[in-house]
Amino acid sequence: MREVAIVGVGLSKWGEVWESSLRTLWTEAALAALDDAGIDHVDSITVGCMTPGLFTGQEHLAAMAADELGMAGVPATRVESACASGGVALKAGFAEVAAGLADVVLVTGVEKMTDVSGDECTAALAAAADAEIEVFYGATFPGLYAMMARAHMARFGTTREQLAAVAVKNHKHGALNPHAQFRHEITVKDVLASAKVAEPLNILDCSPITDGAAALVIADLATAKKLARGKPLVRIAGLGHATDRIALQSRADMCTLPSTTLAAGRAFKMAGKAPKDIHLAEVHDCFTIAEIVVLEALGFCKPGEGGRQAESGRTALGGELPVNPSGGLKSKGHPVGATGVAQAVEIATQLRGDAGKRQVKGARVGLTQNMGGTGASTVVSILEVAS
Amino acid sequence: MREVAIVGVGLSKWGEVWESSLRTLWTEAALAALDDAGIDHVDSITVGCMTPGLFTGQEHLAAMAADELGMAGVPATRVESACASGGVALKAGFAEVAAGLADVVLVTGVEKMTDVSGDECTAALAAAADAEIEVFYGATFPGLYAMMARAHMARFGTTREQLAAVAVKNHKHGALNPHAQFRHEITVKDVLASAKVAEPLNILDCSPITDGAAALVIADLATAKKLARGKPLVRIAGLGHATDRIALQSRADMCTLPSTTLAAGRAFKMAGKAPKDIHLAEVHDCFTIAEIVVLEALGFCKPGEGGRQAESGRTALGGELPVNPSGGLKSKGHPVGATGVAQAVEIATQLRGDAGKRQVKGARVGLTQNMGGTGASTVVSILEVAS
Repeated sequence: MREVAIVGVGLSKWGEVWESSLRTLWTEAALAALDDAGIDHVDSITVGCMTPGLFTGQEHLAAMAADELGMAGVPATRVESACASGGVALKAGFAEVAAGLADVVLVTGVEKMTDVSGDECTAALAAAADAEIEVFYGATFPGLYAMMARAHMARFGTTREQLAAVAVKNHKHGALNPHAQFRHEITVKDVLASAKVAEPLNILDCSPITDGAAALVIADLATAKKLARGKPLVRIAGLGHATDRIALQSRADMCTLPSTTLAAGRAFKMAGKAPKDIHLAEVHDCFTIAEIVVLEALGFCKPGEGGRQAESGRTALGGELPVNPSGGLKSKGHPVGATGVAQAVEIATQLRGDAGKRQVKGARVGLTQNMGGTGASTVVSILEVAS
Repeated sequence: MREVAIVGVGLSKWGEVWESSLRTLWTEAALAALDDAGIDHVDSITVGCMTPGLFTGQEHLAAMAADELGMAGVPATRVESACASGGVALKAGFAEVAAGLADVVLVTGVEKMTDVSGDECTAALAAAADAEIEVFYGATFPGLYAMMARAHMARFGTTREQLAAVAVKNHKHGALNPHAQFRHEITVKDVLASAKVAEPLNILDCSPITDGAAALVIADLATAKKLARGKPLVRIAGLGHATDRIALQSRADMCTLPSTTLAAGRAFKMAGKAPKDIHLAEVHDCFTIAEIVVLEALGFCKPGEGGRQAESGRTALGGELPVNPSGGLKSKGHPVGATGVAQAVEIATQLRGDAGKRQVKGARVGLTQNMGGTGASTVVSILEVAS
């Protein structure tokens, strides 16, 4: 298998971007990554997007994207795994380079979410759950994650304030990130006083609806070295992918995320690393409870100790293991199909030392964890500065 | 790059399958392929599906599928490239095996199209065209292909009867296929007398709306040899993928299919073969005009001679180059996400000598051509009996 490295990163504007359509957002991120890599041609394109059909009426997205970029002819593949679509786009591009089907691949993710009403958006996102045995009975994602939060609180004594501490930390990080949708700090009191969404989750426990796109240029190591021109090379040292029962009710336990544990195990094995080797991580904090359970599932703390990680400062910038230095989904935003790619953009930016005010000092190994639904799919990547 | 072979094939029931849901259809095909391969575990799953969101409200399809099969945990990836989604699923699976990320992959395609109204179905399929500059102005696929037919008739003198001859041939083939949706023969007179859809295309020039799924088990050559147990092994000798401008109006020419020509060139180069080496082909006859233009784009005849291929009998069973021995999209049916996988199922079945009454004698090398939209994406595969 050929080794693969990241040689370019790019983001579109993120937020409620009324002035840009799906294709404009995508192209903005793609051009930024190509510009960063210093190239104007790629061998292949992957596009992670959850549901452009329900959000915008446009499928056949990869062909549309290649065309929009002036690259009609280039093989282009859209992949979907709900909110893990971006992670799967990275895996698909990685496979093509590793196999030798392509030397240079543009790996992208995008979602345009604000062109539909709030109800339509909730319905589109619910398509990530089991349509027949969850959505049909009225389940939505805030409700499903609220049940996970209640279960975690009941079993481990996780507190309402510990949930809030995740949002407070991630807003603090996001305030330092010029790309973040929300660049203001919040307090635990703000979170507790914010509008209820699904008990015990309030609106400030939830990641926002976001328009945005993210892009990476990846290449085989030999090509990457030629393209690096002095910039630090970031190698994709490990990549793990796993699934789980799609409906929360089908799982043995609401307090664990087996797909994340499995995917992480595969990524750690491939990279020859363990949780203690990781200097920083971008994880899927779609709701505050998610970051808590994910840290346990990744082996960054013991089961039941997830709630103490943000509260204690361990996962803050300056702490032992900074988590979501970008601001995470909560503050940076969550254009669902883009998120997995944007996580790798942040880690690569950090490992290159380009993260400005939110820079994690001395970071040489980072991890991304991107999941779909209530964890029915997860992609974990381990990125490392190539020596 | 590791060599890859097909070790199992399976199809669900195809047609208006009122009694089966999306997941049931998918599982039926997947189990058939696993049974044919004689295995109960795979390392990875790919699922080609165009728009389960618009057709059934279910996204996150690969996780749902792995779960339904009792394989939660296994990495599973959905890919989409409109009606080329199945071909792209084959490519994605191929890349994972070729790279060494997986030894055995279940490659699948599925579409459940009859749970929505006719208007909703037309709208969902239209999402394969350019939403902003084609669909917004009222274009539908019959209309777009009708324009291609008119252009071909005007430039090359292709006749209405030649279009009809494609449907007549494919129904004749489909009548021999127990899996075909339409198992009755038709005449040129029937086609000419059938209801108009978009001048010059009548209803019998159009492939039907179909529920169905298809599956393949592929493996690296060493593993495949162990699994073959005396059955002929079918190697994936070449695989080409390409895109084009998504909107028909953006192209230089309505009588050519550059993505098909590009993808075929890539596949032929990889396989070390030329059009003259191909013994049979399954091509994307979504409308009769499509088969005509595709044969020209693949280099099976000169530009302008596509219309004469079915009429002369060259592409019929018993002819020099049998095309769509399965009955093609026209007679076998066209569950859009399943079609590209089903084409490979047919070629593999033929190369193994298992095609019964529609067997192409002495077939050792076959080709599939699967395209999305009006040809904005194409995947071409070349399959060969492993010596």
